[in-house]
Amino acid sequence: MIKMSILGGGNLAQHLIKAFLNSPKIEVVQVYNRSIDKIQRFSPDTSVINTIQDLKKVDVYLICVSDQAIPYLAANIKFEDALVLHTSGSTALDVLNKFERRGVFYPLQTFSKDRKVDFSQLPIGWETSQKDDEKTLKLLAKNISNNVFPLDSKQRLSVHIAAVFVNNFVNHLYEIGHSICKENNIDSNLLYPLLLETALKVEKMPPYKAQTGPAKRQDHNTIKKHLEVLTNNKREIYKLLSDSISHLYENEL
Amino acid sequence: MIKMSILGGGNLAQHLIKAFLNSPKIEVVQVYNRSIDKIQRFSPDTSVINTIQDLKKVDVYLICVSDQAIPYLAANIKFEDALVLHTSGSTALDVLNKFERRGVFYPLQTFSKDRKVDFSQLPIGWETSQKDDEKTLKLLAKNISNNVFPLDSKQRLSVHIAAVFVNNFVNHLYEIGHSICKENNIDSNLLYPLLLETALKVEKMPPYKAQTGPAKRQDHNTIKKHLEVLTNNKREIYKLLSDSISHLYENEL
Repeated sequence: MIKMSILGGGNLAQHLIKAFLNSPKIEVVQVYNRSIDKIQRFSPDTSVINTIQDLKKVDVYLICVSDQAIPYLAANIKFEDALVLHTSGSTALDVLNKFERRGVFYPLQTFSKDRKVDFSQLPIGWETSQKDDEKTLKLLAKNISNNVFPLDSKQRLSVHIAAVFVNNFVNHLYEIGHSICKENNIDSNLLYPLLLETALKVEKMPPYKAQTGPAKRQDHNTIKKHLEVLTNNKREIYKLLSDSISHLYENEL
Repeated sequence: MIKMSILGGGNLAQHLIKAFLNSPKIEVVQVYNRSIDKIQRFSPDTSVINTIQDLKKVDVYLICVSDQAIPYLAANIKFEDALVLHTSGSTALDVLNKFERRGVFYPLQTFSKDRKVDFSQLPIGWETSQKDDEKTLKLLAKNISNNVFPLDSKQRLSVHIAAVFVNNFVNHLYEIGHSICKENNIDSNLLYPLLLETALKVEKMPPYKAQTGPAKRQDHNTIKKHLEVLTNNKREIYKLLSDSISHLYENEL
């Protein structure tokens, strides 16, 4: 049985607390968050605290907060021989340099308050400073997912950037599509089957092969018609992405 | 029974031919394509031709070719009292001005050779020059889909632009995510659960609400770290989309 405490109360923290509370091989000893109301709901199953000095000694501390808050929490964990992990995509392992046994537990998914996440397929990348701790980290990860893999700091930063493209930026393009519909009194739900098929398609074929549209076939007439209608940042984004696609496929025409 | 002929042999044409051949209330009399090999497989069920002059008189001609080829086919349909439709997102109805009874049949989906499409939920926007033909157009569309709606030329252009954002451009961002993974020896399949959840999420909540990430929370540290790694068009796209997101949410911070 691994004794573990989790620090954080955001969307990711809440999902992880729930997942680890359901893991038979892990005991969640304490959950800490600055404001207790976000973690109060876990109080029947674990000890919830909002005073960092009340942290008890456990095997593993999982710091699951915004990147900027990691150093503060790390400074306040006084058990320097414990294994201390963070969950950040873009923070190097050395932010935890104070601890000889440090590591990263990086789940690659978008977490929202109201969405259930299928943890069994959730990719979790791990990194550790000590070979001896690999087993513990893998065990932790495998307790909540079947999709667990090593990922060093440089790779993790790259995966995080890739995730910004396929999640944050993709969602922003969804938002632009929706707002174009709204501006023209069109039900934006009409876009949904297309949007979903676009995602489903790349499970079966690489996006390079799945690409279609005016930019790929260098259909300048259509691109011109579209640019005439668009304004401001929508127009700039249309232009830049079309140029990028045209450039990628220019040798295929 | 509506007698119909379909002109075209691309991905969309092939899917539509198949769908209409399965519709009990529609008789597909002929299928025309410049190169016969693309439509040969339909020859057991309909007449396939590659000479436009061999078109017989039917009730409806469905022109389902690239935008540039529409005028040529329209010029070669000699039955000027028939209902003639095109399927283009960005072509106004008046490209068919020669025909008094003209219309548009615009399916909002991405079609690939190797992907089956669930036509029952496929949004189909229609437009017609003659009120009398509305019934026929709706009947055609409803024979293959439950998601049928009127869409004038201006709205159709807007929907097409929105579709370019949520399909073509989104797929390009998938491609960028995949190439970042490849460059760093990371299995790009890791991105798939995130990518799929990003799409599934906006079925339940508007993309405006679903947005997360460094640009939304104006996390300049992370953005800076990411820009330091990125080069060329990936860097430009990262910058422009981050600025656009920051701008959209700046009043919320």
